[in-house]
Amino acid sequence: MSCSKSSFEHIRHRPPHQLSGPRELLVACPAFRSRVNLSNIVRTCGCFGIQRIIACGSGRLDERIARDGATAVAIEVHRSLPPVLDRLKREGWELVGLEQATRSENLFSFSFTPRTVLVIGNERLGIEPDVLARLDRVAEIPLAGLPHSLNAATSTAIAIYEYCRQFPAGSTTVEPPQ
Amino acid sequence: MSCSKSSFEHIRHRPPHQLSGPRELLVACPAFRSRVNLSNIVRTCGCFGIQRIIACGSGRLDERIARDGATAVAIEVHRSLPPVLDRLKREGWELVGLEQATRSENLFSFSFTPRTVLVIGNERLGIEPDVLARLDRVAEIPLAGLPHSLNAATSTAIAIYEYCRQFPAGSTTVEPPQ
Repeated sequence: MSCSKSSFEHIRHRPPHQLSGPRELLVACPAFRSRVNLSNIVRTCGCFGIQRIIACGSGRLDERIARDGATAVAIEVHRSLPPVLDRLKREGWELVGLEQATRSENLFSFSFTPRTVLVIGNERLGIEPDVLARLDRVAEIPLAGLPHSLNAATSTAIAIYEYCRQFPAGSTTVEPPQ
Repeated sequence: MSCSKSSFEHIRHRPPHQLSGPRELLVACPAFRSRVNLSNIVRTCGCFGIQRIIACGSGRLDERIARDGATAVAIEVHRSLPPVLDRLKREGWELVGLEQATRSENLFSFSFTPRTVLVIGNERLGIEPDVLARLDRVAEIPLAGLPHSLNAATSTAIAIYEYCRQFPAGSTTVEPPQ
């Protein structure tokens, strides 16, 4: 065994990467069936330095799941998504749904705009028609096997990762990779 | 509202993308504290067309979480990871840990080898030293905020996504994007 192989060491509390600008990504969630999913999304957002989530329904978290994301991420609770999405659109945000839909674009080659609202669907119902009608674009994770449907928090984490990969230092200061 | 905006329609059961070759990605899991995590990983693997998981511990699933992944994915249960990792290494697989570690490579720019074993760590302990010592490389998801630690199933899903993004049609037939 070469000596390099034995030199990985687990770092238990790695200091976070410093972003040169804030993440201009907003995550907009419907009323989920399970607060486990919202709590998981909050944890993931906190980890990636995303500061703001729009939630519908109770907006309640399981803090054992959300961890410090519960304090690091501002959760704005709304009765429904259409009015807030209309307002964000007027403010210049691009509304991107994450869904299996007609005219969707493959997430593998999806190019995000910095000021993006990532719109998530309900676990059972997906993104509802009155929200779909407001979207600028839809990103879809290409799936290749059963059960043909990712968990809502898992697919959200993947889309957040892809956005951050394109803007690794924050949203506005670095060109995305080609 | 332009007419294009109203033309997204949710597709409830999109047929899966056909891969031109099998995914040569194997996911190796330690004994997790929670079978929710293994079950979530199995669901995600099924969705991405990954056919084989190595698990330690009981290997038991919550099928309400794993869904059809429980039948689509072969789960090989081992007492511990080192012997099976040694065997896979001899068979030519690259062993890639997913961890916060010294000498890790940023997942944003990590270039996967087709025949990869993705090695996951325990929720609390991370990847244990006797497994770290066997790894060829370590990929790390760069985090920028609290709680500085993703859920084990979430981070696994992100790494699986990144692998599949690099080999969108299966592992061996298409060059990864630059």
